[in-house]
Amino acid sequence: MKKISLFIVTALLSFSAMSQGKKSFTLDDLLPGGSTFQQLQPENMYTAWWGNTLVETAIDGCNEINLSDGSKKVLFTLEQLNQWLGAEKDAPAVRSGFNLTFPDAGQPWVAAVISGKATSDDRRTRIYTVTDFKTGTKVWEQEYPADASAIDRSPVSKNMAFIRLNNLYVTTANGENMAVSTDGCHDLVYGEAVHRNEFGIMKGTFWSPDGQQLAFYRMDQSMVADYPQVDITTRIATLCPDKYPMAGEKMHKVTVGIFTPATGKTVWLQTGDPTDRYFTNITWAPDNRKIYMIELNRDQNHAELVRYDAATGSKDGVIYEEKHPKYVEPQHGLLFLPWDSSKFIYQSQRDGYNHLYLFDLKTKTYPETRNTANGGTCREFVKVTPLTSGEWVVKNVIGFNEKEKTLLYCSNEIHPLQSNIYKVRAKDGKRSLLDNGEGVHYGNPNADGSRLIDRYSSPTVTRSIGILDTKNGKSCNLLTAGDPWKEYNVPEISSGSIKAADGVTDLYYRMVKPVDFDPAKKYPTVVYVYGGPHAHNVEASRNYYARGWEIYMAQKGYLLFILDNRGSEHRGLAFENVTFRHLGEEEMRDQMEGVKYLKSLPYVDADRMGVHGWSFGGFMATNLMLTYPDVFKVGVAGGPVIDWQYYEVMYGERYMDRPQDNPEGYKGSNLLLKAGNLKGRLQIIIGYNDPVCVPQHSLSFLRACIDAGTHPDFFTYPGQGHNMMGKDRIHLHEHITQYFEDYLK
Amino acid sequence: MKKISLFIVTALLSFSAMSQGKKSFTLDDLLPGGSTFQQLQPENMYTAWWGNTLVETAIDGCNEINLSDGSKKVLFTLEQLNQWLGAEKDAPAVRSGFNLTFPDAGQPWVAAVISGKATSDDRRTRIYTVTDFKTGTKVWEQEYPADASAIDRSPVSKNMAFIRLNNLYVTTANGENMAVSTDGCHDLVYGEAVHRNEFGIMKGTFWSPDGQQLAFYRMDQSMVADYPQVDITTRIATLCPDKYPMAGEKMHKVTVGIFTPATGKTVWLQTGDPTDRYFTNITWAPDNRKIYMIELNRDQNHAELVRYDAATGSKDGVIYEEKHPKYVEPQHGLLFLPWDSSKFIYQSQRDGYNHLYLFDLKTKTYPETRNTANGGTCREFVKVTPLTSGEWVVKNVIGFNEKEKTLLYCSNEIHPLQSNIYKVRAKDGKRSLLDNGEGVHYGNPNADGSRLIDRYSSPTVTRSIGILDTKNGKSCNLLTAGDPWKEYNVPEISSGSIKAADGVTDLYYRMVKPVDFDPAKKYPTVVYVYGGPHAHNVEASRNYYARGWEIYMAQKGYLLFILDNRGSEHRGLAFENVTFRHLGEEEMRDQMEGVKYLKSLPYVDADRMGVHGWSFGGFMATNLMLTYPDVFKVGVAGGPVIDWQYYEVMYGERYMDRPQDNPEGYKGSNLLLKAGNLKGRLQIIIGYNDPVCVPQHSLSFLRACIDAGTHPDFFTYPGQGHNMMGKDRIHLHEHITQYFEDYLK
Repeated sequence: MKKISLFIVTALLSFSAMSQGKKSFTLDDLLPGGSTFQQLQPENMYTAWWGNTLVETAIDGCNEINLSDGSKKVLFTLEQLNQWLGAEKDAPAVRSGFNLTFPDAGQPWVAAVISGKATSDDRRTRIYTVTDFKTGTKVWEQEYPADASAIDRSPVSKNMAFIRLNNLYVTTANGENMAVSTDGCHDLVYGEAVHRNEFGIMKGTFWSPDGQQLAFYRMDQSMVADYPQVDITTRIATLCPDKYPMAGEKMHKVTVGIFTPATGKTVWLQTGDPTDRYFTNITWAPDNRKIYMIELNRDQNHAELVRYDAATGSKDGVIYEEKHPKYVEPQHGLLFLPWDSSKFIYQSQRDGYNHLYLFDLKTKTYPETRNTANGGTCREFVKVTPLTSGEWVVKNVIGFNEKEKTLLYCSNEIHPLQSNIYKVRAKDGKRSLLDNGEGVHYGNPNADGSRLIDRYSSPTVTRSIGILDTKNGKSCNLLTAGDPWKEYNVPEISSGSIKAADGVTDLYYRMVKPVDFDPAKKYPTVVYVYGGPHAHNVEASRNYYARGWEIYMAQKGYLLFILDNRGSEHRGLAFENVTFRHLGEEEMRDQMEGVKYLKSLPYVDADRMGVHGWSFGGFMATNLMLTYPDVFKVGVAGGPVIDWQYYEVMYGERYMDRPQDNPEGYKGSNLLLKAGNLKGRLQIIIGYNDPVCVPQHSLSFLRACIDAGTHPDFFTYPGQGHNMMGKDRIHLHEHITQYFEDYLK
Repeated sequence: MKKISLFIVTALLSFSAMSQGKKSFTLDDLLPGGSTFQQLQPENMYTAWWGNTLVETAIDGCNEINLSDGSKKVLFTLEQLNQWLGAEKDAPAVRSGFNLTFPDAGQPWVAAVISGKATSDDRRTRIYTVTDFKTGTKVWEQEYPADASAIDRSPVSKNMAFIRLNNLYVTTANGENMAVSTDGCHDLVYGEAVHRNEFGIMKGTFWSPDGQQLAFYRMDQSMVADYPQVDITTRIATLCPDKYPMAGEKMHKVTVGIFTPATGKTVWLQTGDPTDRYFTNITWAPDNRKIYMIELNRDQNHAELVRYDAATGSKDGVIYEEKHPKYVEPQHGLLFLPWDSSKFIYQSQRDGYNHLYLFDLKTKTYPETRNTANGGTCREFVKVTPLTSGEWVVKNVIGFNEKEKTLLYCSNEIHPLQSNIYKVRAKDGKRSLLDNGEGVHYGNPNADGSRLIDRYSSPTVTRSIGILDTKNGKSCNLLTAGDPWKEYNVPEISSGSIKAADGVTDLYYRMVKPVDFDPAKKYPTVVYVYGGPHAHNVEASRNYYARGWEIYMAQKGYLLFILDNRGSEHRGLAFENVTFRHLGEEEMRDQMEGVKYLKSLPYVDADRMGVHGWSFGGFMATNLMLTYPDVFKVGVAGGPVIDWQYYEVMYGERYMDRPQDNPEGYKGSNLLLKAGNLKGRLQIIIGYNDPVCVPQHSLSFLRACIDAGTHPDFFTYPGQGHNMMGKDRIHLHEHITQYFEDYLK
């Protein structure tokens, strides 16, 4: 395999020599939600596949793109489409091509969602409408309530599922409406993504491949405590109770049903008692007759891949089992090979990194327990063949090339900060790099996987979009964006690595130097931190993935430093699970290695160091302020975890076990007990209606500080959740910036 | 009448010449709740009347005080009392004499509340125990649940009423327990002070003079919205709903019952439909057969004094009626003359100032409507004789001298800032000053009113306690406190007057100069403000009533200025009700006159002016920051009203009418609409569980500022209500001080 040099890690993007006379950014320029944000984004192009035909979905219509040379041909204009839909010119039914879809690879059909008329009981409806763009005639439409959510369509059967007021409904292709459930309520919900979206759960309905059966989640949460959220925007503030199972407390019970529209009947998977169990990664077999699910115990250290009979709900057997002394975390459903329905791809960290394994259902093996490379055990009930391996992770499978019988996937094999597109041959695991080997790539393949849209950026490439031939890796460029910031005084952004506190592991950082940087000066320095699992802050994409606020702060004269400590993602299981049962400790040790490095730099003012983070990063920022009160003078912690017993069961117990089983770990990570250590200025900021890190975290922290006689500051965004969205994001970053300006400068 | 010079207004208390080498105060020294606060309070003495005998209730026991010379004789020691109660020496049943009472003027009895034993169902009890201190024997005791509240005893019948879990109970003298109500719940409460303690309502149970009948309030609040308060101290935060009728919204319905323990029966006063009506100032006739009540319409512009028959509850007739185009606010029950049960004293502002009127029930007059001096009307159904009059207010009636047939009361007749003890003769209204004509006095008379304990302070007298002979005003001094602050560097505290914005009304201010004041320097200046009705900030008591925080700020180098604007109390109705339907406007105009005066002073730094206030003062501070953004650089607003539609019906509608009836007034006083004006630094601070100015005020303000792109700061005290109590009060004032130190200094 071609070895790609690690040039990006030491590359510097230097603009400072040309800074004179250039423009300065506003926060609106730099942050999503800002009024001028879009204008300063790199040039872009939106595409969709219509079978194997590539379509540009533009503002004013859709164009077919020639796969060989990228040339365009108008398929239809938005004006035409609106005419076909009978819309007035002043009130178009469809306002941009971006949300159009092509629901049938074999037909020249374009689908849009348009507003329906008000019904007799004054409820609005929406209409999913499909138009033949060759003839300009309406092919088919489906009306549904405007307050329906979680809409899930089978492109094959045209059946549609949706949720309304906690109940699940199906509208069939011929317009028949069916209530799958009728007893849905606050305590009992149908069709929702369960387990608070952990374990890779993104939705709660799953059509069989032929679209004739609907698997769905039913969640009984009557035994789960309500967290009392309050809506202050009503005439008199109102209670909005939110079921929130806290670590160690009673958890919801999930069951899985299979509804058949043709019969109107539901069967239930016979899983046994659902108490303290997680049911995840529901996957239909290609034959529509079996259904697979990964079942995990509450302690999350024992996962089983189980098969059920879809017609009866009866258990058909265990296919695979994994255990680990810390935790097993299944996050991906099965991917059946399009050319062989007896084989599927399973993703696992059993060898220490997320890799692909080929399961052969035609085989049967003795279920012997054997040790895995990650320190756990597994039992294989069918033959399992590793397809990929190595000290790097498969990030995601993006498709298959059916003709070549290869899988298309992204991994960081070239460098931990990169993501590149590969193919791997199913029969022997032979893999090849398909893209240019640089930066961070995303791939979106066509119907047969012969081509994919390759979108990427790197520290030297703002944005590039091309068509990649998955047979030979040949590329046809569609767009290379120019630098949208060329008129601006952009700070120098660099990346590098240091050793973790364990002395051996490489950790990667990003540094954003103040604009007009002068190495002879000393600059106030802010560490931005996240540090938790399932996330990273540094990668080899544009500007090394720098956030707009970093640019803004650099412009204000700060040096920004961002380090992905152990515990963060894409570096393998041991890198992540070293934090098990004592969240915060190793992460802080690593961050302090970053501080040590910063202090070694002559231009970092060690007397003016600050820290900022949100969510897990808010936990880290608060913890660093309280654990190293003489290092950090100013901190801003957003939506922080303060005491892990207030966090939810799924995520919380995976990393911390239950409070009753790990009292020392909960005590050690409980920031309430460190409230008296506060010395510098620390501002806590939360969305007043945060349903993720509930306000009890931060309010308990204020209470603890008051009791301890220390003085944090506090701000809250009423109506906002865990992250500030829209315009509030600008206000938030003004607020954060002002705090550093007030106390660190 | 002796004319007392107004010396106090211009007096200056100057300590600065001697400031060198003196101690500095901590906040703990200066604020209630502080660990050293009590040590630095003026020397004190606690007394109680046992009939006509004066008793000192000291820490270690009770002494009889000779009324002629103040000499003391031990009645009993606490050690003796504990022996009599059978308490262990290490675990005394009674820990200080301060809470002892003498329940029978004719008997040598001392009463104490001691802890009872745990009952079988593990509920604690308390015991009210009466001991004969001549013989050391227990006379009588009464046991009741430890979670009983609103305990109300008849000293005559010894019947006791109390509330437990929303129901009302009576325990009779012989220990019989009776449930007056059994259907009490969150929606329906018995025996509580109703109407959120407005209209002078302090309690919800009223024993007849003979103690054989109990009048009580019953409040149906099922139609009142719950404000969703949240307790974050439980394992999972819990909802604590609080019935809170907001201005213009549905209000509770009150009825009044009369329970007779001897029969176990309750009759209800036949008031008619209680919707949108207030029932206040319940008073028993001396003969136990009639009961009086003032009834007010929701618009609060029509009050009737109504009499009912206690045995049947039937309406006996209207005695008196008052109307006013703005509002009538009855705040005092009837006071029957001890020597003539056909006459009572009624307090009214009908002549523009709170005065005393003698009603003669033996008479009957034609109920003609006539105009009152305050701009309203009245109807007198019996003969009414004004007893006092003039451009000053009766503050409170403190008792009667039965022998002389005089009333004892306090008024500010000498000076608006003073309170002095007078007597007035019932037959002809001849009144005489009884005290020394200085400062602010409180009087507590003995059983026959021949003597009273006169406690006072003034700008030159820290604290003085004496026995006053109400016949001739002769005084026997018991205590003259020394200066508890003589070792401290105390700032100069002065008072003076300016003209209100109307150009004619005198307004009084207090000024606290920075310690070690140098007139050649310019000082940062903080206006402390309240400004609402029912309160004043400046009076001629010790330090002109300065709050400890002002002393602390003066010590930090700030000048403090406190002005009682129009709308505040003790200056008559027109002074108060000029703010009707547009709260904040006149008040701010007056405060800006204060600012004009401050700016005329060479040592006030007009570029460093701040403002601080709490509750109505928080409304004022916020309003001033937003209305005069170029005047005030820094503000701290505690528990502010932001939008009067979020305030409760009784107080809110009295001054603002209903939102639907006064949209312009609500709009003009709505600080949400001014959120975009914020220019300086404004910190909003609230008790997280504030049941008075509910969090919706401040949270809506944050939301409005965020939407307007302005940046207030915010802090909250979880678990606290409208005012921070105990140790949190220290933390709060550290927090407030720090804010001025950060941004104003």
